[in-house]
This record gives sequence, structure tokens and C-alpha cells, in this order.
Amino acid sequence: MEEIRRLGPSILSPTRSRSVIHNGVVTTVATSATKVPSLYEQTRDALAAIDRNLEAAGTRKSHILMVMAYITDVAMKPEFNRAWDEWVDRANLPLRACVGATLENDDLVELVVTAAMAT
Amino acid sequence: MEEIRRLGPSILSPTRSRSVIHNGVVTTVATSATKVPSLYEQTRDALAAIDRNLEAAGTRKSHILMVMAYITDVAMKPEFNRAWDEWVDRANLPLRACVGATLENDDLVELVVTAAMAT
Amino acid sequence: MEEIRRLGPSILSPTRSRSVIHNGVVTTVATSATKVPSLYEQTRDALAAIDRNLEAAGTRKSHILMVMAYITDVAMKPEFNRAWDEWVDRANLPLRACVGATLENDDLVELVVTAAMAT
Repeated sequence: MEEIRRLGPSILSPTRSRSVIHNGVVTTVATSATKVPSLYEQTRDALAAIDRNLEAAGTRKSHILMVMAYITDVAMKPEFNRAWDEWVDRANLPLRACVGATLENDDLVELVVTAAMAT
Repeated sequence: MEEIRRLGPSILSPTRSRSVIHNGVVTTVATSATKVPSLYEQTRDALAAIDRNLEAAGTRKSHILMVMAYITDVAMKPEFNRAWDEWVDRANLPLRACVGATLENDDLVELVVTAAMAT
Repeated sequence: MEEIRRLGPSILSPTRSRSVIHNGVVTTVATSATKVPSLYEQTRDALAAIDRNLEAAGTRKSHILMVMAYITDVAMKPEFNRAWDEWVDRANLPLRACVGATLENDDLVELVVTAAMAT
């Protein structure tokens, strides 16, 4: 079997990983640690958590393949886009989809990200 | 081309597969066959269906990479977590994301799972 | 590093790709360009956009691995299924999941698709 590397567990739960690496791809999940009622602020924070998770896995933003974003209020998507545009690596644009979903507690955004491993 | 193996079709529909295998990874989808109004019961049942689908593909729980869960009521997530914690392989924790979405009929949970193939 | 190929950017946004290719798999996203208030029509249009994106990436419908569909009204899923059944390659059935989510503006459907590259 191609080796599976599991990082974590998640800081949110002892029964799931924070990141999983397989076939040269890391998959990771993040929300915002601060639950401020601003989609812009939470998106910035969640993207920074993604950056940290990728670094812990041994890769980085330029290697991101896809970002799947769940936000609680699609009417606020311009705030999500603003944080995205400030953060994104314009030389290495990820694929992205962003849909409205309900999230736990005061989360306004949840991100699922895949990235190629650096070598 | 890297070979694609398709298992199924889905018991729910003749026009989609139950599982697809490619690049040493199987992806599969499950809901609960029993539509009892309990997220705990439906999650147990859907996870058991995942176990069966993985076995049919030639792999198993310890090789799961990620579980993407859609549940109809995030306020009930503790019930989802209870079924998860009873089921999960604590030596091989999957990555997981769980968001609220609307589902068909009386489904309370739908799971999309990727797992490395056993060799 | 395994090479990453990025196609696009998206016609909807200059800060994300339309498709990303890595490890012999292309991932792409589409909505309907025409925002007619019919899930059947929008699904047909979004599936046609997927076909075009796959062709631009150098692959085709027969190589699709999975379609993740987000629709705004699960009660209308029979309309989605009708467009799907007319479009799908019955000799190469994709895996599929379809859940209800909120989408921007007048979008009724959004598709995230993975396909093996043709060789």
C-alpha cells in the first residue's frame, strides 16, 4: 500500500485527524479559532489555519489544488472573496467552490483543502 | 490511462456507481437504508454501509483517508459524533468534515468517503 | 514534485482556476451560465460546461470519477436526475452525491467533478 500519513489529531476532536497525506496529496480541514461575527475575519483566520496545517504537512500555499468552502450565509460571499483575494497566491490559483451550508455553533466558514506535497 | 474500476451501480440508482477506484484510492457514498428518525441510528447504518462498500472494493476502515458528512440538523451533531466515536479506528483516524445540508426524503445523513486501497 | 497544471482562470473570477490537474486527475467546477429558473435547464447547461472543461483539460465524460452536486432545492431533484440520465455515459457511470445547499444569485446547481486524464 502507498503509505498513509496522519497528522493530528484535530484540535477540535481526538477522534479525527487534522491532515491526511497519501499519493503525494495532503487533505486538511479548518475553521476559524476566533468566532467573531464577521465572515471576513473568520475567513482570514481559517485560511491562516490552512497555511499552518500545510506547513506542518511539509507543503505550502503555492501547491494548493482545491479549496472547498462552506459558508453559513452566501449573501456575505463578498466578505469571503475579500479575504480570499488578499490571501491567494496569484501565480498559483487554486480551484475553488463555495456553497452555503449550516455549521456548528458560531462558525461562519469551514474549509476543506487539498494540496500537492512539496518535494 | 491509469485504470478506472467502477463498482455497482448504486442500489439507489441505475445511472451512477456505488464506488469508483482510481490511482489506488476508492471513493464511495452511503446513506442509511433504514430511515428511522434518529441521527445516531442512521449514522451507524450509513457507516456500516461504508464498511461494506470498502470491503467490496477490497479495502477497509483502517485505510480511510477522509469522510465528508452531510447532516440535516447540525444541532444534532453530538448524535453523529457518538456513532462516529463507536465506529472509528482510533489507530487510524480519518480526516473528517461535517456540515449541515438538506437531503432527500427522510435521510438525516449522507457520507462521501475516500480510502486507500489495501495491497 | 508531481507537476500541477492550472487552467483558467475561472470565467467567474480572476482569482481562482477553472480546472486543476495533478496525479493524472483533473478537478473542475461549473454552474449554469444561463440562470433560467429551471433546475433541469441549469443542470443541462452546467453538465455541458463540465464537458467543455474536461475537453479543455484533455479528457472526457467517460473518464469521470465523481460528480459532487449542490442543488438549492432537493425537492426538485427529479429534474436534476432527468438531465443527468440524458447526459451520463451508461458504460462508465460516475460516482455521484447530490445534496441541498444555498448558492449565489440565481444559481440552482453547482457541480464539482473529478476525472481521470486520458492518455
